[in-house]
Amino acid sequence: MNTVNNELELKAEAAKAASRRLAYLSTDIKNMALNNIANDLLVRSSDILAANELDYKAAGESGMNAAMLDRLLLTEERLESMAQDVKAVAALPDPIGEVIEMRTLPNGLLIQKRRVPLGVIGAIYESRPNVTIDISSLCLKSGNSIILRGGKESIHSNSALAKLVQKAATRAGVPDGAVQFIENTDRSLVNQMLKMGNYIDLIVPRGGAGLIKFVKENAAMPVVAGGIGVCHTYVDRSADIDKAVAIAFNAKVQRPTVCNALDSLLVHKDIAEDYLPRVATELAKAGVDMHCDEKSLSILKAIPDLKLSPATDEDWGREFLSLVIAIKVVASLDEALEHIERYGSGHSEAIVTEDDNSATRFLNEVDAACVYANASTRFTDGAQFGMGAEIGISTQKLHARGPMALKELTSYKWVVRGSGQIRSA
Amino acid sequence: MNTVNNELELKAEAAKAASRRLAYLSTDIKNMALNNIANDLLVRSSDILAANELDYKAAGESGMNAAMLDRLLLTEERLESMAQDVKAVAALPDPIGEVIEMRTLPNGLLIQKRRVPLGVIGAIYESRPNVTIDISSLCLKSGNSIILRGGKESIHSNSALAKLVQKAATRAGVPDGAVQFIENTDRSLVNQMLKMGNYIDLIVPRGGAGLIKFVKENAAMPVVAGGIGVCHTYVDRSADIDKAVAIAFNAKVQRPTVCNALDSLLVHKDIAEDYLPRVATELAKAGVDMHCDEKSLSILKAIPDLKLSPATDEDWGREFLSLVIAIKVVASLDEALEHIERYGSGHSEAIVTEDDNSATRFLNEVDAACVYANASTRFTDGAQFGMGAEIGISTQKLHARGPMALKELTSYKWVVRGSGQIRSA
Repeated sequence: MNTVNNELELKAEAAKAASRRLAYLSTDIKNMALNNIANDLLVRSSDILAANELDYKAAGESGMNAAMLDRLLLTEERLESMAQDVKAVAALPDPIGEVIEMRTLPNGLLIQKRRVPLGVIGAIYESRPNVTIDISSLCLKSGNSIILRGGKESIHSNSALAKLVQKAATRAGVPDGAVQFIENTDRSLVNQMLKMGNYIDLIVPRGGAGLIKFVKENAAMPVVAGGIGVCHTYVDRSADIDKAVAIAFNAKVQRPTVCNALDSLLVHKDIAEDYLPRVATELAKAGVDMHCDEKSLSILKAIPDLKLSPATDEDWGREFLSLVIAIKVVASLDEALEHIERYGSGHSEAIVTEDDNSATRFLNEVDAACVYANASTRFTDGAQFGMGAEIGISTQKLHARGPMALKELTSYKWVVRGSGQIRSA
Repeated sequence: MNTVNNELELKAEAAKAASRRLAYLSTDIKNMALNNIANDLLVRSSDILAANELDYKAAGESGMNAAMLDRLLLTEERLESMAQDVKAVAALPDPIGEVIEMRTLPNGLLIQKRRVPLGVIGAIYESRPNVTIDISSLCLKSGNSIILRGGKESIHSNSALAKLVQKAATRAGVPDGAVQFIENTDRSLVNQMLKMGNYIDLIVPRGGAGLIKFVKENAAMPVVAGGIGVCHTYVDRSADIDKAVAIAFNAKVQRPTVCNALDSLLVHKDIAEDYLPRVATELAKAGVDMHCDEKSLSILKAIPDLKLSPATDEDWGREFLSLVIAIKVVASLDEALEHIERYGSGHSEAIVTEDDNSATRFLNEVDAACVYANASTRFTDGAQFGMGAEIGISTQKLHARGPMALKELTSYKWVVRGSGQIRSA
């Protein structure tokens, strides 16, 4: 056991040492590393797919369900898409070195607030092997070292991908040690990693609520975690009904298993009788279960072929991650705002309205990472926002909020140049 | 005890409720609140000074030392200076509502990254009563509610100042509840406050290392803490000796009790024999104790009237907060960089050099909140950097680094306006 512990310590130390040189590595070298990764994903695809087959077979034998198996699976096509994503990150501007602010003080000091990497990022993630590539490319581009700790079920795939990244990066001139992969999938190593506040500047957990909770409660270093989204869409009295049907349907149905999908639909009482039958009929076509408050139930119960049930207290503030929706009729915009404040998770919230005052109030007053007027909450995503790939979506207010990509993996420092200035008072 | 607990909960709840309206309060009202505070500090000075006298007397009777007594004391002059500082914050641009980024996506969505307040700031501080005013004015200007918990020794002063702030703010139209003061100085309330992650978005501890450590270890919400500064100044082989003497003297002597004062002086071996006698003679005039490594001791021992002693291992990486300095001769810039990396606290580090390559390497490679070429580390300060007052100096890399003022008390949200957009893939 001691050997394993020492190995992790050595990896963390190497990552930290490499991060010092990574911090001022040229953009060309970083981009070359990323382009090498993209090329190697195609050139060495047979190695990767062979490793993935080992994971896939073991997972199938262990009785993993079809959806999870699909998330685990790599194919030539998926490798090509991963390579495209890496190239997209290479094409983004380098955030490092950016002068965020600059001024000359009256005493002649030139002060610059300059963007720098965070240092060493620790990633703890489950299941999907493409996370190995996503996180590595974002960290390298933003000048950070990375310590990767993937899940047991994709250990062969992750290991092969991490080796690919290491070789591709070294070939470009990235300092050795910048990319570390933890082969040992024993849970105790996660515990040990979370204690390494002297080496790791930020931990990013990606996975289920259990993993995220465990990491937040046990990490000695900062954690940026999100992933939980209880998302509301409020249909205002002045909403365009066609838009409101399309937006709610898209937000609920287009990909129900993700954090930016719609959970609770709030409808103004003045529009409920027109709107609810329309949207419920559409939702029913997609097989959506509707948990309705008393008023919406009384409106919808006349419509045939709907999957209706009375909402319980547990339905408000619940992230369904499936084809289930909670529906509530509210008396006013204020009631909608109060409901969202009480039950929202600060992820993504939307209003559908043609009234600019209502839109402005909603966008100003709702306290969430992303607030929408007349659009689907499904847009909360780094790629959709034009930030390239994303490392996760933060629902915290400190440091980074919403989709996290390159800039969100940086800090800054104050660089001051003088000519002998001293302070007098 | 239960009554007290409930009272704190009610205060936190009121602060949270007020923060929602504060978030979009007009700049005019916020500035009026600050100007009211500045005026009331002068108009109602006799009340404040009477309250302060109670604290001062009790502290004197309890045997508080002269330096601490002086920190506690308020005078007409000090109130005037506090009023000036508040007016300076009123004159700064309002950070809230600033559009940090804006773009229109190909699908027509207009997305804005807009600066918003954090929400509720909890301040736990010791001794100096002006902190009540500093923190209140920065929080109000940045649209945050504040829960103030000052030390026992200045309870009467803090209470009078907090009431002044509350009245001045209410008169301007700031929502009731935005400024909360905890009268009860029982330690158990700090514990309770640190558990209120549902109400308080950020805790700022100000005080000694003990307080900061306690808060960091026990807070359920994010903490921005700094205050510990182990600061180095490295005198390069190419340094201008006059500048290097003036900078080291200023950084060590001008105010030795603060976190940006010089602790360890590193001197390149090629310049040590010229530089060390010059700087040591000046430092001796101010009564500085010098803890020297072997080489610097061998150079300095011939000079009369110096307070010299051999450095021990504990001298490196130590924050002296007094007229003591550690001195070490290094063989190269690289050795200086390694020493700073090993012993620095990431606060403020300086190089004195006429060689631009050395300056650039130092500024790039040293990982600290503030890095200086040819200037005193004493400049690390919000007011000196042109940010107005400061709420503290962060040595963390996440969220805020270096002096923290208005912008550092904010978050952002993504505001998206559409016309019915839905996501297709």
